[in-house]
Amino acid sequence: MDEFMQAAIDEARQGRQEGGIPIGSVLVRDGQIVARGRNKRVQEDNPIKHGEMDCLFNAGRQRSYRDTVLYTTLMPCYMCAGTIVQFKIPKVMVGESRTFGESRAFLESHGVEVVDLNLDECVQMMQDFIADEPTLWNEDIMEL
Amino acid sequence: MDEFMQAAIDEARQGRQEGGIPIGSVLVRDGQIVARGRNKRVQEDNPIKHGEMDCLFNAGRQRSYRDTVLYTTLMPCYMCAGTIVQFKIPKVMVGESRTFGESRAFLESHGVEVVDLNLDECVQMMQDFIADEPTLWNEDIMEL
Repeated sequence: MDEFMQAAIDEARQGRQEGGIPIGSVLVRDGQIVARGRNKRVQEDNPIKHGEMDCLFNAGRQRSYRDTVLYTTLMPCYMCAGTIVQFKIPKVMVGESRTFGESRAFLESHGVEVVDLNLDECVQMMQDFIADEPTLWNEDIMEL
Repeated sequence: MDEFMQAAIDEARQGRQEGGIPIGSVLVRDGQIVARGRNKRVQEDNPIKHGEMDCLFNAGRQRSYRDTVLYTTLMPCYMCAGTIVQFKIPKVMVGESRTFGESRAFLESHGVEVVDLNLDECVQMMQDFIADEPTLWNEDIMEL
């Protein structure tokens, strides 16, 4: 397992232990983790803190993201994909897109490289969560 | 002036008085303001708190946004546009798009109605700000 995707999965699992939605993210520059984040909808009662958004919040104000890679356990939603495009992050490493994720074409049309690792571990983590908390999941993807 | 756009402009002006970037937003449902927000990059050292994002954060966890209208003093960036699409907000009222804003086609392609009021007051507010703080503005639109 890629050490950075493992760090994103660790964030996701920590979020689930907190009662939250298990999606994690790390921002990497020059082979180092700049920031880590996880979905905080439940923990902070915050609908804009998806995993990727929390990670970018934790990274603080960066002069540029052009030399970064964003790792996320799940294909970004449009909020997070729009943020990746806006922040000019050139590359996204994705844990899986079987559970969710329609933003790949949007990202690629804006020049973002998307690598989908299609990891069974990430799929299983989401499927276990959705089985436990279907309403919470539908709230997070705005399908209530 | 539309009272809701006026409220968004008031948020923007308050943000500028705080030393921030003058972009404001309000979320409206059934003719009532649900939440107000303004860009907090400077005030909270927070790159994800554009005006629209701060407004949606302040609105808290909503069951649905399908019956809401989002007002913003400036055409949304891709982060905010992606959020509007993801949150299924059906309509956006925009103060102006002369200063910035390339997301209109993206929003419309996802079924969002975009009304650009093209207000001189909003343009002037941004031009005054950009003349005072060009580096801060370029940081906010990731053009450093």
